[in-house]
Amino acid sequence: MTANRKETVDLNCDYGEGFGAYRFGGEEELLSLVTSVNIACGFHAGDPHTMRESVERALAAGVATGAHPGLPDRLGFGRREMAVSPGEVYDFVLYQVGALQAFANAAGSKLRHVKPHGALYHMANRDGEIAEAIVKAAAAIDKELILYAQSGSLLLETAERLGMNAASEVFADRTYEPGGGLTPRSRRGASLAEPEAAARQAVSMVVHGRAFTPEGGSVPVRADTICLHGDGPHAAAMAAAVRSALAANGVRIAPLHKK
Amino acid sequence: MTANRKETVDLNCDYGEGFGAYRFGGEEELLSLVTSVNIACGFHAGDPHTMRESVERALAAGVATGAHPGLPDRLGFGRREMAVSPGEVYDFVLYQVGALQAFANAAGSKLRHVKPHGALYHMANRDGEIAEAIVKAAAAIDKELILYAQSGSLLLETAERLGMNAASEVFADRTYEPGGGLTPRSRRGASLAEPEAAARQAVSMVVHGRAFTPEGGSVPVRADTICLHGDGPHAAAMAAAVRSALAANGVRIAPLHKK
Amino acid sequence: MTANRKETVDLNCDYGEGFGAYRFGGEEELLSLVTSVNIACGFHAGDPHTMRESVERALAAGVATGAHPGLPDRLGFGRREMAVSPGEVYDFVLYQVGALQAFANAAGSKLRHVKPHGALYHMANRDGEIAEAIVKAAAAIDKELILYAQSGSLLLETAERLGMNAASEVFADRTYEPGGGLTPRSRRGASLAEPEAAARQAVSMVVHGRAFTPEGGSVPVRADTICLHGDGPHAAAMAAAVRSALAANGVRIAPLHKK
Amino acid sequence: MTANRKETVDLNCDYGEGFGAYRFGGEEELLSLVTSVNIACGFHAGDPHTMRESVERALAAGVATGAHPGLPDRLGFGRREMAVSPGEVYDFVLYQVGALQAFANAAGSKLRHVKPHGALYHMANRDGEIAEAIVKAAAAIDKELILYAQSGSLLLETAERLGMNAASEVFADRTYEPGGGLTPRSRRGASLAEPEAAARQAVSMVVHGRAFTPEGGSVPVRADTICLHGDGPHAAAMAAAVRSALAANGVRIAPLHKK
Repeated sequence: MTANRKETVDLNCDYGEGFGAYRFGGEEELLSLVTSVNIACGFHAGDPHTMRESVERALAAGVATGAHPGLPDRLGFGRREMAVSPGEVYDFVLYQVGALQAFANAAGSKLRHVKPHGALYHMANRDGEIAEAIVKAAAAIDKELILYAQSGSLLLETAERLGMNAASEVFADRTYEPGGGLTPRSRRGASLAEPEAAARQAVSMVVHGRAFTPEGGSVPVRADTICLHGDGPHAAAMAAAVRSALAANGVRIAPLHKK
Repeated sequence: MTANRKETVDLNCDYGEGFGAYRFGGEEELLSLVTSVNIACGFHAGDPHTMRESVERALAAGVATGAHPGLPDRLGFGRREMAVSPGEVYDFVLYQVGALQAFANAAGSKLRHVKPHGALYHMANRDGEIAEAIVKAAAAIDKELILYAQSGSLLLETAERLGMNAASEVFADRTYEPGGGLTPRSRRGASLAEPEAAARQAVSMVVHGRAFTPEGGSVPVRADTICLHGDGPHAAAMAAAVRSALAANGVRIAPLHKK
Repeated sequence: MTANRKETVDLNCDYGEGFGAYRFGGEEELLSLVTSVNIACGFHAGDPHTMRESVERALAAGVATGAHPGLPDRLGFGRREMAVSPGEVYDFVLYQVGALQAFANAAGSKLRHVKPHGALYHMANRDGEIAEAIVKAAAAIDKELILYAQSGSLLLETAERLGMNAASEVFADRTYEPGGGLTPRSRRGASLAEPEAAARQAVSMVVHGRAFTPEGGSVPVRADTICLHGDGPHAAAMAAAVRSALAANGVRIAPLHKK
Repeated sequence: MTANRKETVDLNCDYGEGFGAYRFGGEEELLSLVTSVNIACGFHAGDPHTMRESVERALAAGVATGAHPGLPDRLGFGRREMAVSPGEVYDFVLYQVGALQAFANAAGSKLRHVKPHGALYHMANRDGEIAEAIVKAAAAIDKELILYAQSGSLLLETAERLGMNAASEVFADRTYEPGGGLTPRSRRGASLAEPEAAARQAVSMVVHGRAFTPEGGSVPVRADTICLHGDGPHAAAMAAAVRSALAANGVRIAPLHKK
């Protein structure tokens, strides 16, 4: 993959990850800093009430609404891999995105993208059949949906091969390996804890198409959308730093869908 | 309510009520005898895989596909009342019908109706706000959806008052009270166990607009659709008896939606 | 009921109410202020991991460990009444308390009490068969378990009638009606928001056996254990105020079980 | 492993695998043919009511009662592997076995063994830490519990190494590979569909300590307990054939626990 320089970028965060009486992370603070949200659909997190409220808040905030389907493992927050078949994944995604779409339509909003959550996202980067199942389920809902997939991933490649709109996603606060994948969290230097470091990498990703390695090198990435996390201690500070650094470097921050 | 004579009637049954490794009742045998099915949506019964298969089988069998949303109580099969608010009911129905609609659309089929399940159906017959919540959720999905509601019920009245298409439902194998409600199961003569008796009542309901009381009298009902149960010992025999008795009396058996 | 003056009182709070990735309320701050905790058992809240950790923390903090079984309604946090039968309630309580007991025993601790949660607690105050089912399930686990039940309630009466150890529970931050029940939250003056007011009532309950009414009167209560809430904004401050006011009035604060 | 000749053998089957309104397989027919049952504990199958009834029926039938804990994946019936940690497995097993023990004790019965279900059983045959977690959880409940584990497996070895009573389990209707493991179901000859063939193998396993390979050879096994399946078309016929063939060959059929 060659480097990709861009003039516009989307900022996304996970949203609606509470459940019943529970709230999760600092997602409300991020809502004013991002341009698109990935709303949990009731499997790994979220529930019908949280989904309705999340869709309504996203609409009020003027950010693009997307679905964040996960594995049926609420106890594990969708972070544990499960030996599910591609057929099962297709059904899981169709169910969850369909349910969220109903809330979006009822609110007078529109679903713009789909981003698989947690273990499902990772499985789709390794297993071509899982990747296909996700893409086909999203396409069955609405061919205009944009699939958010990790830069350089099998899922991104699959979505584009199958003619689906795809957004190449990067992580501002995670470093990358020479092969283009994320540095595993178990390794030193996997995360950029300082807002300034994350902001610097965000600018590099968008303007120069290059992410940082833990050793100080860089690797090519394509940054259509930058994922911001809501659950760290500096989540809002980091999001604000990324946002202002991008603006200071002349990057327009906007959602990806056509008007 | 005055008696209603009809020339056409729909026969419906619940469908897709399995879950994971579990199957429920004799629903497959009924599929060739009905003209519409109410598919469970994953709360009281059903799951994404069962929903996909059920939609596909209904399409192959040429019967109309509807949603059968229930309370979030899988252990109780949605038969236990819960102190849920109208707002919660709205969200439950929107979520479930939205999810099933995704499967219907993906299969090239179309969702035609919504029938609340179990305790939700009964609560909607008693609580006007619950009834409104169900009708509004169905309308938010698709204004053309037909709401199946018990003959003479508050839910039927609410659907019609709010401008929704509504089908008045009767039960071939249950007797009725003078007030027009079902005879409670705890009372003698609540059920018609013999296929012939149920068939006789079905004809009376459609042709004469009258249902039977346990005492041998009759009460007016409106029979747009007749519910056939799949879980009794004589389920298929009863459905077949109802069907042929109706045909023998010149009643056309057909789904309710406009082509 | 006559007023009951006491020299010792137990302070309890709900505990282990997280689930998976979710945490709930400020329960950790209360742990050093109470003498007994009611641990959620995986139905309305809690999960096997949270239960193990909660039992271990309670043991380390030297507080008595009890079970807090609820209705099978995680989405509603066990706060919604459900039309469950006494037989179902018996099974729910046996299952949950049995599971928690395994964690207590594995940790070298011992289960000391059972307090039904939320809607189950309220249903047991009104329905004698539900109350009996809870008492019998607790007794089936261990006849030495102490049943925590609201002062003056049917559940308290039932536990004592069936020969079970029972602790009469009062709420420091809730006012009482002339009949001895809690003032409904919908009514003005139902809660005592100020730590000082709650502390004053706590002393009155224990030393004089009298709780406050919203109108400034008082009603007799029996205060074997005082429930402190962990989820309000002043939860820890209120607990500390109650604790020091009791101590200042010569009340010994200690768990209820025999050594 | 050398061949093991035995004069007594236990026959076990899974039991209590229904859930709510659902029933599973032909387990009732097997109850009079086995000497021990593995009761589902509410994660992959079963629920508090089913558990209570199952314990009571097992007691009435005079068979030994054991726990059958599984992964928290009801939709997948516990048959899908999940990336759970050993610590999570310990908690899952402790929770489930503790809950079932409460029902056994309440019925005046006693829990005799633990057999992990489905994917958990298979994971424990491959991953030593998972195996240890299961054994330690069972031991924490009751050191007298017998762990049922596949003949020649890591779980069996782990249980014995940790000083736990262990029963080596074989499957009458499955063939074995030269290495001593089960022939994968995907391979030809993996199952013995004929009751007579299964009965012949059962006798060979117990009397000669040898199981069959698909190619007609044999491999050494230790048959302390034989698992009989309840969900095939010939389940009861096969169980009856196994039972009478063993009796005809002078094998005593009895549960494993000491009186």
